[in-house]
Amino acid sequence: MTSLNRQITLKRRPEGYPSESDFELVETPLRSPGEGEFLVQAHSLSVDPYMRGRMNDSPSYAEPVGIGDVMVGESVGRVVLSNHEEFPEGTFVCGMFGWQEYGISDGKGIRRIDPGAAPISTALHVLGMPGITAYYGLLDVCALQEGDTVFVSGAAGAVGSVVGQLAKLKGCRAVGSAGSDEKLAYMTDELGYDAAFNYKTADDLGREIRAHCPDGVDVYFDNVGGPITDAVFWSLNIGARVGICGQISQYNLEQGEKGPRLFWHLIVKRATVRGFLVTDFAARFREALSDLTSWYQAGRLTCRERITDGIENAPQAFIEMLHGANIGKQLVRLHDDDS
Amino acid sequence: MTSLNRQITLKRRPEGYPSESDFELVETPLRSPGEGEFLVQAHSLSVDPYMRGRMNDSPSYAEPVGIGDVMVGESVGRVVLSNHEEFPEGTFVCGMFGWQEYGISDGKGIRRIDPGAAPISTALHVLGMPGITAYYGLLDVCALQEGDTVFVSGAAGAVGSVVGQLAKLKGCRAVGSAGSDEKLAYMTDELGYDAAFNYKTADDLGREIRAHCPDGVDVYFDNVGGPITDAVFWSLNIGARVGICGQISQYNLEQGEKGPRLFWHLIVKRATVRGFLVTDFAARFREALSDLTSWYQAGRLTCRERITDGIENAPQAFIEMLHGANIGKQLVRLHDDDS
Repeated sequence: MTSLNRQITLKRRPEGYPSESDFELVETPLRSPGEGEFLVQAHSLSVDPYMRGRMNDSPSYAEPVGIGDVMVGESVGRVVLSNHEEFPEGTFVCGMFGWQEYGISDGKGIRRIDPGAAPISTALHVLGMPGITAYYGLLDVCALQEGDTVFVSGAAGAVGSVVGQLAKLKGCRAVGSAGSDEKLAYMTDELGYDAAFNYKTADDLGREIRAHCPDGVDVYFDNVGGPITDAVFWSLNIGARVGICGQISQYNLEQGEKGPRLFWHLIVKRATVRGFLVTDFAARFREALSDLTSWYQAGRLTCRERITDGIENAPQAFIEMLHGANIGKQLVRLHDDDS
Repeated sequence: MTSLNRQITLKRRPEGYPSESDFELVETPLRSPGEGEFLVQAHSLSVDPYMRGRMNDSPSYAEPVGIGDVMVGESVGRVVLSNHEEFPEGTFVCGMFGWQEYGISDGKGIRRIDPGAAPISTALHVLGMPGITAYYGLLDVCALQEGDTVFVSGAAGAVGSVVGQLAKLKGCRAVGSAGSDEKLAYMTDELGYDAAFNYKTADDLGREIRAHCPDGVDVYFDNVGGPITDAVFWSLNIGARVGICGQISQYNLEQGEKGPRLFWHLIVKRATVRGFLVTDFAARFREALSDLTSWYQAGRLTCRERITDGIENAPQAFIEMLHGANIGKQLVRLHDDDS
């Protein structure tokens, strides 16, 4: 074991898309875990769209990352030194350790992972936050009903991949948009989406939606916002439910974008739009993980991983994810021995 | 009784604000009621913002008024000839008779009114559609809780007048915006609003909202849309509920207006926006009317009327209402003997 911990810190706040120069790779001495603490070596680090918001200094649902602070993020890893009896050496765990190779914890907010149940990296996607987000977003926020037509934006990402599969598991029609033909093939061939289209090359988003959702849209699971959302609103059915999970199209704009006013659609369609955070459902994570794990083990739920190696490449992986390079879940691999 | 019926028909579809020349006053022979029908002489006609939508030929929740057709609308009046035993001569009724002096009905969708309970014109506002709209919009759609801060746009109109009073009845803080100082005085002096401001003369809508809602907004009852709604969204509290009742600021635009994209607020605040029509609650009208009538008779609910005389002046009254001339409910009086 090394005595140095490599970390990625926030060097400056980006305007628009972040660049690698907004981050800094630093090496800090690794302290030993104190009484009631344990040291975790991270194996895989998650990079997610929400992290873009944490780089801003504006008010939001969580504190921004400070300049010079380690970037926030969830990772999975293994306890390598422990003074905590519930987390002995060798335990696999998942938690908000940040963008670094090693983390120290007192166990608060840390989830134990069973490496026999599924590959541990799945705790960062289909059996973790993105999976739980899809689960409560679709079943609770959007009040999914059998037979619904479900439209998903950002449908090939970590959350969207699960939303489409859950919609199919629940007897619904699943249609989604994504930004490359390779993603569309993944959606229809591997995830079971009934239809998919490329929002970047479509001449007319509304026409695509009407063509693939001929009976209208009952549930819209929105990860993206912007023009695709504007277009979906014209196809909402009476009583439609819209869950706002993310607005990734808006996160890297240097100035707020204007768009058509959408609320008269809500009157005409008596529709509901609800924003949510997965943490709102924290008390019920176990229930979601139990279902997701059963479906995963039965081969009914899957998610591709896009893997970038090395903590030094985390900024690049994050930026590529923001530009849509990932199919499924973007991960940064720090250590590859999960046995 | 005359043998001619004066009616206002739609002459052409307006672009932007309607003008009087978009309507036509016609006189048609008055037929006698057939078997199972009755003839109603209208005493007061309601003009409402929703009628602007019916003048357009675009898809919405109801069929547009055809060119040459009598304008839709609700009125109160008295049965003057009857072949229907449930609606004998002398019965006071409320129904969708349209913009005309006389109407014939088979009783479907017609509500009997007790002239001893309240002035019959109240069946067009505080004890009618606007009152029921306020009731279900606030209590059901916005899931009002005691102690909430409620913000109302269009707060001195027929619906907004009732929303503010209901919020106070339910132990909430009520704050609203309107477009004249006379309306503000009406709101605070007669309706019991805790605070009110003039959106037309405010330098900074957001600052006004923050000043009058120092603990943020739990419930936003929106009749107006546009810039006031954009501003309120910055003050929404976590778990806020927004009811979209109307978007009158948008109804007379020749081209759809663009505005800031609002959905990221919904994620940050885990807020819900729901559009509704009062007709969604048709099965429960009696419950609302019972409560509203009790409160009215106890002197806890009121609404001013702005009265324009004569069917020939209905277009003018409607246009003035769209421009915000009314404090409380805009009515057109056709006959003034309600005894």
